[in-house]
Amino acid sequence: MDEIKVFRDKVITDNLNLHQKNFGIIEYGKLVLMPEEFLYLVSNNKIKTKYSFDAAILKFSKKIYNKFIIYSDLRKKGYILKSGLKFGSDFRVYDKNKFNEHSKWLLNVITKDKISKKDFSAMNRLANSTKKNIILAYLDSENGISYFEISWKKL
Amino acid sequence: MDEIKVFRDKVITDNLNLHQKNFGIIEYGKLVLMPEEFLYLVSNNKIKTKYSFDAAILKFSKKIYNKFIIYSDLRKKGYILKSGLKFGSDFRVYDKNKFNEHSKWLLNVITKDKISKKDFSAMNRLANSTKKNIILAYLDSENGISYFEISWKKL
Amino acid sequence: MDEIKVFRDKVITDNLNLHQKNFGIIEYGKLVLMPEEFLYLVSNNKIKTKYSFDAAILKFSKKIYNKFIIYSDLRKKGYILKSGLKFGSDFRVYDKNKFNEHSKWLLNVITKDKISKKDFSAMNRLANSTKKNIILAYLDSENGISYFEISWKKL
Amino acid sequence: MDEIKVFRDKVITDNLNLHQKNFGIIEYGKLVLMPEEFLYLVSNNKIKTKYSFDAAILKFSKKIYNKFIIYSDLRKKGYILKSGLKFGSDFRVYDKNKFNEHSKWLLNVITKDKISKKDFSAMNRLANSTKKNIILAYLDSENGISYFEISWKKL
Repeated sequence: MDEIKVFRDKVITDNLNLHQKNFGIIEYGKLVLMPEEFLYLVSNNKIKTKYSFDAAILKFSKKIYNKFIIYSDLRKKGYILKSGLKFGSDFRVYDKNKFNEHSKWLLNVITKDKISKKDFSAMNRLANSTKKNIILAYLDSENGISYFEISWKKL
Repeated sequence: MDEIKVFRDKVITDNLNLHQKNFGIIEYGKLVLMPEEFLYLVSNNKIKTKYSFDAAILKFSKKIYNKFIIYSDLRKKGYILKSGLKFGSDFRVYDKNKFNEHSKWLLNVITKDKISKKDFSAMNRLANSTKKNIILAYLDSENGISYFEISWKKL
Repeated sequence: MDEIKVFRDKVITDNLNLHQKNFGIIEYGKLVLMPEEFLYLVSNNKIKTKYSFDAAILKFSKKIYNKFIIYSDLRKKGYILKSGLKFGSDFRVYDKNKFNEHSKWLLNVITKDKISKKDFSAMNRLANSTKKNIILAYLDSENGISYFEISWKKL
Repeated sequence: MDEIKVFRDKVITDNLNLHQKNFGIIEYGKLVLMPEEFLYLVSNNKIKTKYSFDAAILKFSKKIYNKFIIYSDLRKKGYILKSGLKFGSDFRVYDKNKFNEHSKWLLNVITKDKISKKDFSAMNRLANSTKKNIILAYLDSENGISYFEISWKKL
């Protein structure tokens, strides 16, 4: 069993080996994981813990399920995802095999039925100022995912 | 005065010369114009008509004003715009000096406050089946225009 | 009576004199007003129209009332407000007597009970990239308004 | 080993020397430390104790980890932080080299996903009645910290 502390917004563990597989960051000698990373590791049996997936998911915010589905889908495809909070988005996404470069996209998980023009504008200005592109990820009720890349266009 | 018949969704005139400047289509020996084309020609004094711009705009649907502003903006910049109705969008847009090739973009004017998931999904299908890119355009209340290119992304 | 066309997102009129009092923009020989500007002019009898305030407000989006309250409050105090849509916010606010300079603030009207950290982050990054400060305007149910200035802090 | 008693909301020790380095307060001949101060001293080996960082952190409330990360960040940058409880906030923050003056800021750590209108209103009252500025701090799941200064604005 790895020693694991679960907080509402992060998980802290002694299992530093996971960092070499691009999970989490190391701080004060511990590995700090995003909730999505932890759930991914639990659901794929890559971390030894007393928490079942069902028990673990209850520890986090209500929005975690949809974000976990997107995280898992992209992680399985070889992308690395990190927190996008500082950029006002859900995730920073690094292109395959380019984790050492700057993140290429800011990803927003769209769970509401509608997005306002104002929010859409904000997202795109933001991406522009940081020289990243925006990805919108839409989930349907069968967990089918659509990804759209959006870029501000100077016509 | 050119002979002009104004309908809710189109304008028909004898002035065939305008076709050489990439306005309208010729059908049964007449030039058939989109409302946006007609308003553009009126507001730029390129067509002789009894209709003032004010009178003309009342003839068309409520959405016409914003669509006209966008049409004018792009036309002035050298793009050619044609009806996108057959593709489920507002305009087909041809790149500068490439009118003889296929249209590059399908443009949708967003007049509502919000963009729904269904709108995105529809645009996605469209982009896919037509192999064109989608441009979203919207106006603020000062007629400032934002353009965004949207592409379905296979991650 | 001024000739007036009311659309869902703007109002167009022949009364160009209002532009000298910092209302609207002029385009194609017409004055284009924001819904908030039009409602302000109607409620202060500064425009001749068949529309009562009650009739006018129904023409616009549901969010207009709160935005109008904020617009009026600041306009009465001498600030000039313009659309903030391009910046992903509700209004650009110009400091008193400095309309010719760049807008100083981006103002967001907060009508929901809560604001997510993500949106808060987005707002602030945006303000930073445009070198403007953010103002949050909160309305209570008695139309009492609180304004907060927010600035990203490098500690 | 210093003699140390750990309570849920404070730590009491005989090591009075730490007070000269701006840790804790002296009361009844003992040094009383905030949990954040204690964790900072433990993680930086500045106090001799049988408690490991892991064991120590379990002694305090669930919010302690994020508050500790923020305490550490600011302390390393030269700020002095003291309890803000009497002011209804998490910390009082003293500017670099100005510990003898009044604290300049009240700092609130946002651990929830959202900030409510009520939170803003409370902060407003606080800022007003204390004539201090308010700093909001929040962490993403990688311990990246954002600081925002908030000030009630009389427009």
